[in-house]
Amino acid sequence: MQRAAALVRRGCCPRTPGPWGRSQSSAAAEASAVLKVRPERSRRERILTLESMNPQVKAVEYAVRGPIVLKAGEIELELQRGIKKPFTEVIRANIGDAQAMGQQPITFLRQVMALCTYPNLLDSPSFPEDAKKRARRILQACGGNSLGSYSASQGVNCIREDVAAYITRRDGGVPADPDNIYLTTGASDGISTILKILVSGGGKSRTGVMIPIPQYPLYSAVISELDAIQVNYYLDEDNCWALNVNELRRAVQEAKDHCDPKVLCIINPGNPTGQVQSRKCIEDVIHFAWEEKLFLLADEVYQDNVYSPDCRFHSFKKVLYEMGPEYSSNVELASFHSTSKGYMGECGYRGGYMEVINLHPEIKGQLVKLLSVRLCPPVSGQAAMDIVVNPPVPGEESFEQFHREKESVLGNLAKKAKLTEDLFNQVPGIHCNPLQGAMYAFPRIFIPSKAVEAAQAHKMAPDMFYCMKLLEETGICVVPGSGFGQREGTYHFRMTILPPVEKLKTVLQKVKDFHIKFLEKYA
Amino acid sequence: MQRAAALVRRGCCPRTPGPWGRSQSSAAAEASAVLKVRPERSRRERILTLESMNPQVKAVEYAVRGPIVLKAGEIELELQRGIKKPFTEVIRANIGDAQAMGQQPITFLRQVMALCTYPNLLDSPSFPEDAKKRARRILQACGGNSLGSYSASQGVNCIREDVAAYITRRDGGVPADPDNIYLTTGASDGISTILKILVSGGGKSRTGVMIPIPQYPLYSAVISELDAIQVNYYLDEDNCWALNVNELRRAVQEAKDHCDPKVLCIINPGNPTGQVQSRKCIEDVIHFAWEEKLFLLADEVYQDNVYSPDCRFHSFKKVLYEMGPEYSSNVELASFHSTSKGYMGECGYRGGYMEVINLHPEIKGQLVKLLSVRLCPPVSGQAAMDIVVNPPVPGEESFEQFHREKESVLGNLAKKAKLTEDLFNQVPGIHCNPLQGAMYAFPRIFIPSKAVEAAQAHKMAPDMFYCMKLLEETGICVVPGSGFGQREGTYHFRMTILPPVEKLKTVLQKVKDFHIKFLEKYA
Repeated sequence: MQRAAALVRRGCCPRTPGPWGRSQSSAAAEASAVLKVRPERSRRERILTLESMNPQVKAVEYAVRGPIVLKAGEIELELQRGIKKPFTEVIRANIGDAQAMGQQPITFLRQVMALCTYPNLLDSPSFPEDAKKRARRILQACGGNSLGSYSASQGVNCIREDVAAYITRRDGGVPADPDNIYLTTGASDGISTILKILVSGGGKSRTGVMIPIPQYPLYSAVISELDAIQVNYYLDEDNCWALNVNELRRAVQEAKDHCDPKVLCIINPGNPTGQVQSRKCIEDVIHFAWEEKLFLLADEVYQDNVYSPDCRFHSFKKVLYEMGPEYSSNVELASFHSTSKGYMGECGYRGGYMEVINLHPEIKGQLVKLLSVRLCPPVSGQAAMDIVVNPPVPGEESFEQFHREKESVLGNLAKKAKLTEDLFNQVPGIHCNPLQGAMYAFPRIFIPSKAVEAAQAHKMAPDMFYCMKLLEETGICVVPGSGFGQREGTYHFRMTILPPVEKLKTVLQKVKDFHIKFLEKYA
Repeated sequence: MQRAAALVRRGCCPRTPGPWGRSQSSAAAEASAVLKVRPERSRRERILTLESMNPQVKAVEYAVRGPIVLKAGEIELELQRGIKKPFTEVIRANIGDAQAMGQQPITFLRQVMALCTYPNLLDSPSFPEDAKKRARRILQACGGNSLGSYSASQGVNCIREDVAAYITRRDGGVPADPDNIYLTTGASDGISTILKILVSGGGKSRTGVMIPIPQYPLYSAVISELDAIQVNYYLDEDNCWALNVNELRRAVQEAKDHCDPKVLCIINPGNPTGQVQSRKCIEDVIHFAWEEKLFLLADEVYQDNVYSPDCRFHSFKKVLYEMGPEYSSNVELASFHSTSKGYMGECGYRGGYMEVINLHPEIKGQLVKLLSVRLCPPVSGQAAMDIVVNPPVPGEESFEQFHREKESVLGNLAKKAKLTEDLFNQVPGIHCNPLQGAMYAFPRIFIPSKAVEAAQAHKMAPDMFYCMKLLEETGICVVPGSGFGQREGTYHFRMTILPPVEKLKTVLQKVKDFHIKFLEKYA
């Protein structure tokens, strides 16, 4: 008590001008005073080391930004320092980052965001009325009419209403309830939050999470973080990466020996594999989940990215309802969407939503509680999400420009999907399935045994070795298939098709030349 | 194989106009077809229930948005529906949400944000040049010169440089390295990320995390999520909530019987307690952490919110360096800042940073890997953070207005801190320590034994009972002390001082009247 009071007194010091009024010299004086009473000792062992850290975090891997991307960063620095390379720039084809690849933002979205950010602009004649209308609606739903206030943990009410209205339109009238909508910090946040709630048990009753192989590595990373059990089901490369329910059966049966399979994750359209699931396939998957009592996670962030004229996106939610009440009132489903993909490509705003179906009311309470610890998703990202689901409609001032911009992005992506498939399939030793949707090619590459040996000598996975060589020789950064998972003895890489058409052609030509040289070198 | 191929074929359907071309009737037809082969069954048990969910998530509590806030929401709805109450509005004094309380955004920050959001505005004469300069600098550092691209997982480089420059200025020249700066999704994200890496071990070697009591409940929530061991040390209410190192010693000694104390969390200025730590106290804490080999977490988000003329903010980083190399090269420290507090109050953008000192290089790699799984913090929040650390300086066009706005916010907060302390201390049965900093009062309230019995009858903590009554009778929403932790048998509540002065006076008067009535009723 005495001592604490003394502490407080000694804490009091005459007010000095400026917030950091204290001078260095007086600081140094104090420091040396400290040193007098405390003699130098040698540097000590760290508290936080690879040995002492959380082993689950240590086990996490995330290839999309893994060693290959760190290497790309080093090479960029070398280029800046003027070090000569067989290329002049690094092309980061490792990630679906549309605007980094030169895609222009959708004007309407940015106009609404600017109006929300700096409401003085609402008086400016240089912004269209429909953009102002959207901005006013969003601001009126924000505390203090400001993007700078926290929103409700679940997200801004009127934005959740707009999301529900969008889903209802998208699904041909199947109703969506705003209370089932949770706005998120990108889709990744929603997926990891739901998994965090789902994982429980120990030993053989530890939760098993079924994921496709190849997968988007967010899933394996979160499974590691949560110390859950990863249950792989393999997509059928010989059938356009289709999901085969017999394979789901095999996987779940084998898993039951060592864990409690409780969750089934689906990515549709597929990442990295680009397939678009047929309605029949979705129906079979839902029936399987119903039979096996699995909680369904439907990652549908590429729902606007369907290119093949023979394919269409069907949401799990819609198919679930069309299968009748036995399913629609029993199967537990969470589906995810994002501002980052589609034709908007607003990755930086970290906007997204999750719709939950048949979630137990008590669990909804638990979900809101868990979300409230982080207070709320970025409100600017929520506003971006609102425009993704509530764009200009025919008759509105901005519709024509919006429609032109949207069609241009999606038209180009469709062109580039076909172009990529065709060019890869002209290369001996590369096979590429049709890019029905999403933003990536995931071609299968033949790696000669001599190259496999060379890779082993470098303690690298063969496709990592391949991608490193590709990066070092051409400046093109792609992600090895081993980062997504692939059948034993097969090799792939993931490359985004987002670069502008002309640049993409160059990239594909460079990959072709590299691959042929690679085959010769290791023949 | 056959079947999968068939699936793919059946997936193909003639292209229909519009993205969601499928009609409801055909959907209904399919639904009934499904029903024919699958007869109705009864509603089934959910997969995800309170019993089956992650018990660690179930254990999480977060009072700042807990039952009291849900009740406040219900009451607001009742008011909207015209239900009569003894008040006309709910005043949400439960959370430090400045702009929701009517605080206006700092003009310069929003101008820069608007320019970054919609770069066409860079040609507009209605924006000052210094704002355009900031915006150009940020955009040039973004992929595709757009806030819509992902940033590096650690954050935009030039913003990390600006943060490092700010820290160096703030700490009177003690150097800061941009490589040690990690931009985060608000401070909460940084704190939970570091704790996630730190927690390990099982049984008696499970990581113990020392937190102050009263604490900000993010800490207890994350400790529950991570299944770590919460180690309480009590702040000294009789000495302005000072931190007493003898109490730290007691806590760590007792903890060693059942866990491995590895982390010491400090909140300075204090939340909810509002004390500002003396330099001497910080020195003692650092020496204690050094002795006991504890990793220091310094939550310094209120570093700009110091009101008492007798107090000044000292950063742990600065004091650590002034204590000499034995400390500055050995003690592991992570400190946190945010866009949400200070005088900017930009909560909705979810911006923040973390500076790490003496973090093992391998752990830095692990940290970047873990952050990369969520790709990056919201780039708009990063931009907001840049303006917080890099505001207009004398001589710049916007300085005068910026300075006026800043001084007005901080001046008002200082006035309200004094006003709140004085008024609370006029109320019999309420004692309030000086609000030296931060944004809250945490007064101690006397609750008569009859009221304690009434609370027990309602299965409520006595201070929850008190706060519920306060809410129901006055519309004022504050958070019970039990949500932050307090010494057995003492009762408190946390109330923000953010409402405008006149409104705050009304709030304090209402609390006074309520408290007196409450004492009479339960005398």
